[in-house]
Parts: sequence; structure tokens; C-alpha cells
Amino acid sequence: MVADPNGPGPRPTLEAVAALAGVSRATVSRVVNGGAGVRAAVRERVHEAVAALGYVPNSAARSLVTRRTGAVAVVIAEPEARVFSDPFFGRQLRGISRELAAADTQLLLMLVERPADYDRIGRYLSAGHVDGALMFSLHRDDPLPAMAERAGLPTVYGGRPGWAGAGRDARPLYVDADNRDGARQAVRHLLGRGCRRIAVITGPLDQTSAEDRLDGYRDALGTPEPDPRLIADGGFTAQGGERAMGRLLDAAPDLDAVFVCSDLMASGALRTLRARGRRVPDEVAVVGYDDLEPAAWADPPLTTVRQDVEEMGRLMARLLLRLLDPRKSAGAAGADGADGPDGADGAPGGEHGPGAGPAELAPVITKARLVVRESA
Amino acid sequence: MVADPNGPGPRPTLEAVAALAGVSRATVSRVVNGGAGVRAAVRERVHEAVAALGYVPNSAARSLVTRRTGAVAVVIAEPEARVFSDPFFGRQLRGISRELAAADTQLLLMLVERPADYDRIGRYLSAGHVDGALMFSLHRDDPLPAMAERAGLPTVYGGRPGWAGAGRDARPLYVDADNRDGARQAVRHLLGRGCRRIAVITGPLDQTSAEDRLDGYRDALGTPEPDPRLIADGGFTAQGGERAMGRLLDAAPDLDAVFVCSDLMASGALRTLRARGRRVPDEVAVVGYDDLEPAAWADPPLTTVRQDVEEMGRLMARLLLRLLDPRKSAGAAGADGADGPDGADGAPGGEHGPGAGPAELAPVITKARLVVRESA
Repeated sequence: MVADPNGPGPRPTLEAVAALAGVSRATVSRVVNGGAGVRAAVRERVHEAVAALGYVPNSAARSLVTRRTGAVAVVIAEPEARVFSDPFFGRQLRGISRELAAADTQLLLMLVERPADYDRIGRYLSAGHVDGALMFSLHRDDPLPAMAERAGLPTVYGGRPGWAGAGRDARPLYVDADNRDGARQAVRHLLGRGCRRIAVITGPLDQTSAEDRLDGYRDALGTPEPDPRLIADGGFTAQGGERAMGRLLDAAPDLDAVFVCSDLMASGALRTLRARGRRVPDEVAVVGYDDLEPAAWADPPLTTVRQDVEEMGRLMARLLLRLLDPRKSAGAAGADGADGPDGADGAPGGEHGPGAGPAELAPVITKARLVVRESA
Repeated sequence: MVADPNGPGPRPTLEAVAALAGVSRATVSRVVNGGAGVRAAVRERVHEAVAALGYVPNSAARSLVTRRTGAVAVVIAEPEARVFSDPFFGRQLRGISRELAAADTQLLLMLVERPADYDRIGRYLSAGHVDGALMFSLHRDDPLPAMAERAGLPTVYGGRPGWAGAGRDARPLYVDADNRDGARQAVRHLLGRGCRRIAVITGPLDQTSAEDRLDGYRDALGTPEPDPRLIADGGFTAQGGERAMGRLLDAAPDLDAVFVCSDLMASGALRTLRARGRRVPDEVAVVGYDDLEPAAWADPPLTTVRQDVEEMGRLMARLLLRLLDPRKSAGAAGADGADGPDGADGAPGGEHGPGAGPAELAPVITKARLVVRESA
């Protein structure tokens, strides 16, 4: 039997520190929260009492004074299995975490494994443990935006909001890529190669990114109602792309190209094409979307639409930091946003001088760009 | 310009709710925290005032009463790039998140991108925003355990602790696999195939899992000092494994087998062997470690040592939940630990009756098992 070193024994209280130091509770609280207005000798006595008792200031005591936690929640409305298999998420998180770290702000990642998780996440977000939130991969009926609004929690979204009530009174802040234009570029490239039966593998159509890319496909084909046998939902997963490609080949064996709305789905589609003996790009040309690792690893290397996912993460974090502390982060954003981020139409802070308040913050749409490799 | 819907406006206070409901602050606080001892009619009045004002209970107010946040931090002492490229982490998190969700406990994931992050993480963990922590992938000089100890934060570790001071006064709780025995099985399998020049690609030797697997290699070879030309550090990454294999082939061109201490590194080693024209397993036999996705995808499919990473995550979470609430979770662990988890030597709660206190909790070591496929 091993003794328990970490057991939840009684923690020393603020009162105990006050008693040992011979000062009031308020004085202990002031010292613990920075010591402003407390004489050095008294500060010293309090610090000694804190050390002697091993006192740890409680969030309660501290946040009653500062109302700031120094932490931001990043909520991804996807289960761990998707988040850890699609490089999109890691890349976006890299951008977010670098920007938050530079502002000495702690990132707390929360995933949504099942519907029951929403309630608990909502409770944690409302309970004052974080100063703000970044939310991405939301679906149309997602309860998270309403939770953030009820909690009065400053929030920036990844992706154009499409949930019920979005745009009603609220004008949510978000960062997105120009998905519709990216899809147009992809399909025009296929048309330019002479392809005439162009299929599309979409993401789940309750996400605006998937919807916008399908709209871009329709734009490029010049018809609002393309042949439904050429459209299949691949759910933004590799397996989904694999299966969707199979359904398309069954329904439209004469297809000569496919625009696949994520690289991960494209890697699955390529497997199916190989298994069915269709040569890429000679018999079926393939264009992906994202330009993440699976695009370069693919066989053949994937022609795809590049969006700068890491930069989008950085922009989200920067918007939120300005929302939380307009004066401080406006200066920061102004400093490194001077040239404008690569591919961004408008960086937060780029067009505003330092001191621009949150009322002047606006959504940011970044550009998408076709990258031609071997698959189309 | 878009108005800011989420800007940090003044939040309604507890005092405002008390004034509107015509009750004391203490009564509002009691109602917000469950309403015990408050008459139904009064409760109703408070709820109406809360709704009318859109009051959100602050962590401060709540945790001053309950001293519980309902959240647990999971700290992985690795940067995002490693966490999102090695399936080990996602799998361990899956086990953790399922177990925590079943106990309605919120998981907050925190990664360590650079040394400066430690301080900020330590501050958040000490500030009362979480009830406990799970920490894994710690390195020898990791400051996290000391931080958890100073903060009095109940903590369970993934992997045998090897940091400075571990085992001094504290006897930390942890979950690990029997790495040394797993490595012995791998190398004995290679000896049994007739291999005589067996190399090893290790993880970073400031992690106990890497150290223990190297010790198992030494055990099986029957010598405390194997030929140093046969040992290379691959840093637990695919690229590291690729490069380490190259160094080994240069230093010991006559090697006929390699034990690679993770599947991810083994996938890199296989690339190098292919590039150098060495046939696997005929010219060089390869055994990996983990039995995660890269093992099955490998060409040829990898003989490897299986550890049940998801189960290890579940066991970590279960230990922590018992530490936080001995009575409640002892019952729970007893219920589904009745048969003992697959491959575990001792499940927390398996050998204790319900009501066993944290003083009786002990580290858990799970078994490792060789899985023979085609690479050796």
C-alpha cells in the first residue's frame, strides 16, 4: 500500500495566513494579488506566512479581485478521433497557441465527444474559469454560440457562422477562408484541363465551409442544380472520402474528375480510384482542399486549394485578444500586422490604429489559392 | 464596422440578483449552488431574478462554497506538433476523456510548447480552476510534478516517474505499462529467429519509458553494455527513426535486426531500410512498440509490442477520480473493474472494496504483449 501524497487534505486558508501574519484578510488578498498599496514590510510578513503555511491562492479569492483568469478556452465541436486524425486541427491549434503564448495567455482545449458534453462545457465556460473562447468546427444546430452569449463570454469563431440565430441580433466575430472562391478555382482548373463530368465529394453540409465549397462548385459549373449523381458527402474523413468515391463511381461511371473538399477525404478517394484501377490524373483528375500533409504525401501528389490554416488560427487568437484588452493588443496587432498577414484580406488591427476598440473589430476572410501538383 | 456582440460588458452581480429578489447575498449563493435549506418559494424568486438579469454565477462565488470546479487538467509535456502526429497521445486521451465524461468531469487539455509555458500552466493549476490533474510524457527535469505538489493538486502521472525528487518523500500515483518486459519479449523474439546483430532505436533517454525499454533490450541480450554502435536515439518521432536507422546502418552495416521503441519511429526506420535496399524481414528484421495505427499500415505490417494505451488512459482517469472522491468512485471502479481490465496487473479499486480511501490507492502497471506480423 502506498501512502497518498496528493490526497485532498484541508488546504490552508486565507484566514490562517492573515492570523499568522497578524494582518487582515483584505491585506492578504491584496498582497496575493500583486501587493499594490501595501507597505513592503507588511508584504514581506504576508509572503512569509504564505510560504510557512503553503497557502495557495484560490481562484475564487483572486478572480473576485481581478475578474481575469489569464486563460482562453478553445472548443472544437468534434470528437477526439476526428481532431487527432485530421491535420487541419493540429495546424489551426498551432497558430492559436503561438499567438496566445506570446500574450502569456493559457490555452485550454476542450473537445465535444458526445451531445451530453455540451452542458458540462457550458457550465465550465459560464463559471468564470476563462476570459474568452475560440470555437471552431461548429455545426448548424450547435448550442455553443448561444451558451457563450448567455454567459457573456467574449468569443471568436473559426468559420462563417451558420447556426440558427446567427445574424439575428448578434454579429459574431469570426475568421474564415474564402471557401466559395477556393472551390471555384478548383473546378475551373478541372474545366480548363478539358474535364466534362466533374464530381464533388463534400463535407457535412451542416457546416458552412462544406456548404460554401459546394456553392463554389455550382458557380464554376454555371448551374445551380448539377447532376445529383455527381455529388456525395464524405463527412470530412479519409474513410468517408474512400466510400463516397465508390458511390460516385457506381452512380456515374463516366466521371472524368472529382473535386474533393478536403485533402484527407482526397487521400481516401485516391485509394478507391487505385482499387478500381482508374489512373489519376489520366482517367480521373483529382483536386483536394487544404494543402496540408496528406496532399504532399498522396500518390500522385495532390493538386489542391491552399488555405493558410495556421495563420487563420493566429488571426482568431489575435481577434480575441483585442476583444479582451483592446488597448494592449491593438498595439501588438498593429506591430506585427504591419505588412498584413500572407493571404489575409484584412488583418484585425491592420486597418485600425492602436487604440481601436472592440466595436471596430470585424470578421476576417483569408484568400484561398490553387496549388497545382500531379493529380490534376 | 460590426458591433461587438461579445464585448466584455459589465456582468450582473450577485448583489443585483439579491436586491431584485429581495433576499440576502448568502441566500442567492445557496440557491445558485443547489438551493439546499432554502424554501421553494424563495428559491423560485431567486431563479426568476437570475433569469431576468441574465446572471451567471462566477467561479469565485461558486468555488468559495463548493471548492470544486468539476474539471480536471490533462497536461502533456510535449509540443502540439508531437501530440498531433503521434497516435499514442490521441489514443490515451480517448481513454481519459471517456472515463472523465462518465463521471461528468470536464477535461481541459494543456500542452507545453516551450519552457516559458511551464510558469503559466503552474499558475493556472494553482489558481483553483481545476480539481486535479493528469500529467504525461514528462521528462526527467520536468517542473510540473513539483508545481502540482506545491499547489496541493491531486495528480496522477502517466508513466513511471523518473524526475528529480520523485520517491523522496512523495510516492506518486501513476499508470504505466511494463516497458522493460515488453522490450525483453521483442528482443527474445528476434533472438529466436536467429538474429545475432540486433540494434535498438530508443526514445529520448530522459523519459523512463525509453530508459526501461533500453534496459529490457540489455536484459534480453544478457549484457549490461551492448555494442554502442548498435544503439541510436530516434526521439520518438518518425523522422528521428528514419535518421537513427541511417546512422545504425553506417556504424554497423552487418546488423540483421532492429528493435524500434515506438511504431512511429519504426515507420521511419522502414523508409530508410527501403531506401538502402535492405529487405525486411529477410535481411533486417524489425520489431516496433505500441501496436497503434502505424504498425498495421506499415509495409510490411509490423511485428510489435502491444500496450493498451486507451486502457492506460482510462486507468489514469479512474485513479484520479478515486483520489478526488474516494467513496463515490470506489463504488464505480468496483462495479466495472469487477473482471479486472484486460492486461492490467491491478486495477485501482479492483482489489479494494467500495469505501477504500485514497490512502490505499497504488500505482498500476499494465502488461505488454508481443504481436507477431510480417516484419520479424
